[in-house]
Amino acid sequence: MDTTDFPTLTDKTALEEGDVLAPRFGADGLVTALAVDADTGEILMLAHMNADALAKTLETGEAWYWSRSRGELWHKGATSGQIQTIVEIRTDCDQDALLLRVRVAGDGGCCHTGRRSCFYRRVVPGEAGPRLAPAAEDAKIRGG
Amino acid sequence: MDTTDFPTLTDKTALEEGDVLAPRFGADGLVTALAVDADTGEILMLAHMNADALAKTLETGEAWYWSRSRGELWHKGATSGQIQTIVEIRTDCDQDALLLRVRVAGDGGCCHTGRRSCFYRRVVPGEAGPRLAPAAEDAKIRGG
Repeated sequence: MDTTDFPTLTDKTALEEGDVLAPRFGADGLVTALAVDADTGEILMLAHMNADALAKTLETGEAWYWSRSRGELWHKGATSGQIQTIVEIRTDCDQDALLLRVRVAGDGGCCHTGRRSCFYRRVVPGEAGPRLAPAAEDAKIRGG
Repeated sequence: MDTTDFPTLTDKTALEEGDVLAPRFGADGLVTALAVDADTGEILMLAHMNADALAKTLETGEAWYWSRSRGELWHKGATSGQIQTIVEIRTDCDQDALLLRVRVAGDGGCCHTGRRSCFYRRVVPGEAGPRLAPAAEDAKIRGG
C-alpha cells in the first residue's frame, strides 16, 4: 500500500468534519504519529508513519512506523519486545497527525535510551540560558 | 534569534543524556511541538516551532509556533484569547520534538474548529475500510 491507497480530500469541511480517513502525508510522505499510554495517558514517543506503516498498523493492530534514520519500515518492538498494541487511533483536525493510544508489551519501555518515555528531560532556567534537567518521572527501566 | 542561536550537538550522548538544550531543527527549520493540558494531560494540538518561536516561547512563557500554512510566527491565542501559558517544556531523547505542558486561557479551546483538542475523531472499522467517528470527548465548546 502506498499513499495513493488512502484517499485525498481537498474540501476543508470534509477533511475536518467528515468520516473519511484521508491522512495528509507531507512532501516526505510522512505524517506525525504520537504514542500515548492508553491507561495512564503518559506521552511515550513521537515518530512518523508513511502510508505503508499506517496500513500495517491498521491491519495488525500493532504500531508500525517509518524510521527516518534507517529509511525503513519499523515494527516497533520487533527486536526489543516493546510491541505497541493499538487501543485507539485518533486523527487531528487537518489529518496530518495521528495519536495512538497503546499498551506496551515487554518491559513496558518505549525509548531506545532505556526509559519508558522519550520525554525524560525538561527545560529549566540556567545562568547562561535554558538548560535541561531530568523530568520528575525520569526513571530508567533498563540500561540504555 | 535564529537557528544558530541554539547550540548544535553532534555527540549522541550529549544530545540524549546532557543538559544542553540543542533542538534539532529539520531541513525546514522546524521541530515538532505537542501541547498538552498541564492539569488533565489531555493532548491538545500538534504544531511546529522554528528557533524564533521557541525563543519567544522561552522568553514570554507563552506558546509561540510557526504557522506553516501562513508562513509566519504565530502567538497562539493572540486573536482568539486562547493563550497557552507554559507550565513545563520537555524535549525528547534526540531533541527533535518538544512537549509543552500548558494552561489555556480564554474559553479553554485549542482547535480552530471550536473544540478543546484537535484530536476529536478516532479511527473505526468500516465496511469498506477504516472510517472516522467522534472520539468520546468530542464536544464543541464554541461554533467552529
